[in-house]
Amino acid sequence: MNQNCDVCKFLENPKHQILLTDKWSVGLGDNHAYLGRAYVTLRAHKPSLSELDADDWREFEDLVRKLENAYGKAFGAVPLNWGCFMNNAFQEEPVHPHVHWHVFPRYKQAPEFADLTFDDPLYGHHYDPKAERNVSDEVVEQIANKLKQYL
Amino acid sequence: MNQNCDVCKFLENPKHQILLTDKWSVGLGDNHAYLGRAYVTLRAHKPSLSELDADDWREFEDLVRKLENAYGKAFGAVPLNWGCFMNNAFQEEPVHPHVHWHVFPRYKQAPEFADLTFDDPLYGHHYDPKAERNVSDEVVEQIANKLKQYL
Repeated sequence: MNQNCDVCKFLENPKHQILLTDKWSVGLGDNHAYLGRAYVTLRAHKPSLSELDADDWREFEDLVRKLENAYGKAFGAVPLNWGCFMNNAFQEEPVHPHVHWHVFPRYKQAPEFADLTFDDPLYGHHYDPKAERNVSDEVVEQIANKLKQYL
Repeated sequence: MNQNCDVCKFLENPKHQILLTDKWSVGLGDNHAYLGRAYVTLRAHKPSLSELDADDWREFEDLVRKLENAYGKAFGAVPLNWGCFMNNAFQEEPVHPHVHWHVFPRYKQAPEFADLTFDDPLYGHHYDPKAERNVSDEVVEQIANKLKQYL
């Protein structure tokens, strides 16, 4: 726990968590421009992928398999786009980067869920980092529950 | 080797390679909107991160450490942005995705190299996926040689 790290603070009271392992916490935000967009966050405060130890990586590999399988079965997502950036942490000094992965599930066929259609107009191309489709807490919980059926 | 896979074909005659391991090939393209932008490509044709075996991951972890260290020392890059997407492979059926990582080095201080200034105006924010700064083959080789000093 780093007192100056927003990610550490978030981990103390995570929202819409779909999976928790010894090393990682997986949760959903409110923005579902890409249905099920998730964050895979290292529970320890480590600043870069270079600092991950063998156990961190072993669990991450296992998570990748579990999540790719679950998103495919729950919503038909193929592929998942994976990114580890930590850019926001470098906006102000002193910096406090904390390893986390962004998961953008991609959809050739726009899935319908909770009476909404989650189209992916850039399928086959880079996701739009600025795309927003905020849904209610209730819908996020429905998305989380659907994914948890396969996790 | 998959005869229909452009990545497999590229690996037969890679350009601007900076590192080759049993499992991965690391090389530079022509676009240096982010100085040293690189591709870390699995030498075997596997369609998703879920298919990587233990040796693939072990070598990848080692590559991450080597590259983060080398980019920092060569050009002052912090952080490296890592992404595994494979979107292009899904533009046409039948699909032939082949695992590769994109590396976008980020620069708070615009590095000067080979009489060019490589500014990063979005530092602290998501890279611009469409940013282009194509440099000559000669300059790419200079970038590669500089990185290889630290690899």
